[in-house]
Amino acid sequence: MRYALSLTIAGTLLAQGSFALGFLPEARNFIYIVPDGFGIASQSLARDYVSLLQNGENPKAPVSIQLPADEMVIGNVRTLASDNLITDSAASATAFGCGVKTYNDAIAVDVDGKPVASILEAAKADGFKTGLVVTSTINHATPACYAAHVADRDSYEKIAEHEIGYSHPLGPQVDILLGGGRCYFKPKSDPTSCRKDDIDLFGFAKERGFRVMQDRKAFDELKKGHGKAAELPYIGLFNDGQMMYEIDRKQQPNKEPSLLEMVDTAVTSLDRATKKSSRGYFLMIEASRIDHAGHANDPVGHLHDVIMYNDVMKFVRKWIDKHPDTVMMSAADHETGGLTLNGFNPLPLKAATMTTEHAGRLWKAYNGTDRRAYLKNTILPGYGLGDLPDAEVDTILKNDKLASDLSTRLSKKAGINWSTGGHTAADITLYGYGNGWRGDDLKLNMAGNWDNTQLPAYIERVLKVNIKKVTEKLRKAPAGWVGKRNLSKRGHSHEH
Amino acid sequence: MRYALSLTIAGTLLAQGSFALGFLPEARNFIYIVPDGFGIASQSLARDYVSLLQNGENPKAPVSIQLPADEMVIGNVRTLASDNLITDSAASATAFGCGVKTYNDAIAVDVDGKPVASILEAAKADGFKTGLVVTSTINHATPACYAAHVADRDSYEKIAEHEIGYSHPLGPQVDILLGGGRCYFKPKSDPTSCRKDDIDLFGFAKERGFRVMQDRKAFDELKKGHGKAAELPYIGLFNDGQMMYEIDRKQQPNKEPSLLEMVDTAVTSLDRATKKSSRGYFLMIEASRIDHAGHANDPVGHLHDVIMYNDVMKFVRKWIDKHPDTVMMSAADHETGGLTLNGFNPLPLKAATMTTEHAGRLWKAYNGTDRRAYLKNTILPGYGLGDLPDAEVDTILKNDKLASDLSTRLSKKAGINWSTGGHTAADITLYGYGNGWRGDDLKLNMAGNWDNTQLPAYIERVLKVNIKKVTEKLRKAPAGWVGKRNLSKRGHSHEH
Repeated sequence: MRYALSLTIAGTLLAQGSFALGFLPEARNFIYIVPDGFGIASQSLARDYVSLLQNGENPKAPVSIQLPADEMVIGNVRTLASDNLITDSAASATAFGCGVKTYNDAIAVDVDGKPVASILEAAKADGFKTGLVVTSTINHATPACYAAHVADRDSYEKIAEHEIGYSHPLGPQVDILLGGGRCYFKPKSDPTSCRKDDIDLFGFAKERGFRVMQDRKAFDELKKGHGKAAELPYIGLFNDGQMMYEIDRKQQPNKEPSLLEMVDTAVTSLDRATKKSSRGYFLMIEASRIDHAGHANDPVGHLHDVIMYNDVMKFVRKWIDKHPDTVMMSAADHETGGLTLNGFNPLPLKAATMTTEHAGRLWKAYNGTDRRAYLKNTILPGYGLGDLPDAEVDTILKNDKLASDLSTRLSKKAGINWSTGGHTAADITLYGYGNGWRGDDLKLNMAGNWDNTQLPAYIERVLKVNIKKVTEKLRKAPAGWVGKRNLSKRGHSHEH
Repeated sequence: MRYALSLTIAGTLLAQGSFALGFLPEARNFIYIVPDGFGIASQSLARDYVSLLQNGENPKAPVSIQLPADEMVIGNVRTLASDNLITDSAASATAFGCGVKTYNDAIAVDVDGKPVASILEAAKADGFKTGLVVTSTINHATPACYAAHVADRDSYEKIAEHEIGYSHPLGPQVDILLGGGRCYFKPKSDPTSCRKDDIDLFGFAKERGFRVMQDRKAFDELKKGHGKAAELPYIGLFNDGQMMYEIDRKQQPNKEPSLLEMVDTAVTSLDRATKKSSRGYFLMIEASRIDHAGHANDPVGHLHDVIMYNDVMKFVRKWIDKHPDTVMMSAADHETGGLTLNGFNPLPLKAATMTTEHAGRLWKAYNGTDRRAYLKNTILPGYGLGDLPDAEVDTILKNDKLASDLSTRLSKKAGINWSTGGHTAADITLYGYGNGWRGDDLKLNMAGNWDNTQLPAYIERVLKVNIKKVTEKLRKAPAGWVGKRNLSKRGHSHEH
């Protein structure tokens, strides 16, 4: 028979069962990347935009390219919560961070409100170094699920306390915290605080040996992770609230580091800190604000934060090629915005140099006398709508709903459709990368469609750590520390 | 070092390069399945619907399950056409059928209008048996690209001529043709013909040794492929136009076979016909009308044809487990309808027992005196809208746009959003299955994100056939046989 010739040694080995290689991997380091609110159409939008700019800007002669993330697709992920077909970021991060299906609003607690350990905490317990690098507030749902345990995601103050180890029963779990949310770490006596109490979490962090950074200047002293200042542990929060969207940040790059700069610094720091150890590191990276732009139905913020996510994926892939004892997986928590691309041409987005969020800031800050002229000559061109007819300018001025008036018009111009300001139920794409046989193992074992709760088991196997053991430790802590669930507050937690 | 222990024999083999297994496969048979117009949310819709019905029908306590296709996810696919960011079915089928990027409307011709051979024709040239099993008209864009070459997809009569071999330069290429489109195979003298000429393609088929079937009764004589009547070649067309949507077909199962019945019959026939041959078969299956329901924004037709697609995937997987010398891949051509699921609860779809198409047929056929009562008591309950208030019934009666009035209301009730009556630009999911080492090879080599033109290369490798060689043969035929492109007819070919 023709095909009998194909049975070589390797084939015979594999023929023993498709999981024959399952016993192989093991890596020192794992990087998990979350593009929050990133759906299947988000990547198509960014890819087609980049391709058109690179290939003559003619939507009638498009060129099929891959963005960096595309090179690492291995499957897709189901996302529903225990109490809703549409998940929020909290239930989803509890799923892929801790392996447990739970309710919308839950931060690393199960359906009964009992704490469940995360893969980060399991790694920490086994001697790995750990990091959380995000562009949202550091105590937002996704990073929260890796190092905090609260019944309700809105308990931001408590989450911050857990994350820095102030009231985490196992003490500080995270060696690197980078992102926004500075105001939650300052006592209420500080005028820029958003705490209701006098707890000084930055002060606590310093006591526990953390280097504390509150601006870009301090961040730069880390010298991309090569500086003496980059010794672990450290916390750097660069905005009282969310960090800026990438396209807005670029306009004033001295204010905040980019996600890519933070990632570069974090992996270098972690690599240096674990060089002489028998254990490596676990790092969670979140391109957090793809989601926020989806909620705002803002194609500009969405596009540029998706491109930044791809830049990070490219960087991590190159890093892994140089450090093959590192494995990466990446998947969104859910889709946001109900984005679809029909009658689609992303070129009109090229003229935009700011998000609707930044346009709103400018608009609010304007104290001149000619609001119409400012709208027409600064805001609208800045958002790629410099060609709106006068009647439209008047309508926008009158409506006084600047952000949605801008995003609706630019979306329409580009053939970009949003069906909701919330989340949707569609599966999201799974990415993964390992060098050589670690990559083969990843494909053989993880190419497929997964429930989000199934993802951390692969990380457990690769790092040889155990989430359940740490869950048991957490449950030995005196009761009550996870707080109570607020059942009255809202019906649709997937709205954020 | 901890991880050094992992380098076993197999690991070392794989470490030679991740394509180390690339030389292995080869299979006798390849099955390629196209769920036309099936986007990422189409599967979520069907999965959540099935899960709710199986698990207590409580959308506030959903259960995460997999449908059969989910078990075979291996990546996703980019779909743009050479002249548009949004593809139509013709350009896409030319891409995944022939490996060539072309313009919307092109049936297996390149951007210059020159014929390009399909993987089916390449298999045929090398002695494989071939089949096309669809629920659309057999001369619709997707099946057309496997055995016809015309400059414009609307040349339905010419496509039928090519497909049956009447005017294909290489003669009949397809041993099994099953689907709709009967009217194109009958001369205009037949009152049910839709040809403008006297060509009798069924007559031609008989002369060339085809068994010709025009109804379910004749199909049943094939005895699921086990009957003597099931000897190749055969053609069975069971509707003058498109075959019925699955949910409508089920109401009168004696009229037409289901896609699953046709697939079961075809693979058994192909298996029997190739048992003693050194070559196996190539079979293309299309769940064609997922797309039509997307165009109609009809969640009922969409849902039940997606479920049928999953039933076929399950059947093929089981078949492959029994016939491991067979490999399967499956991917849609594009997404249709801009489907997103927000505020989503598919349970209201349960009450529907017909599509909007069938409702339209009933409505048109009604010749009683009380149209309002018929609408209220038969049509609306039949479409799951039996609870509409009287005012709404009156509105629908007055509007006289029954199909869209029904689909809009039921979609809204179920939290199902459609952004377009056309196609969209999002990537679609890639599925694949092989048993044992053939499955491992598929994952190692095809897990990922692909341009649709890259897909047939894997089939070429597995079957050891060569598309280019057959393209050269086609181009030796006297010029002009592919017809001319109609550039004037429309601006948006992706509208169908």
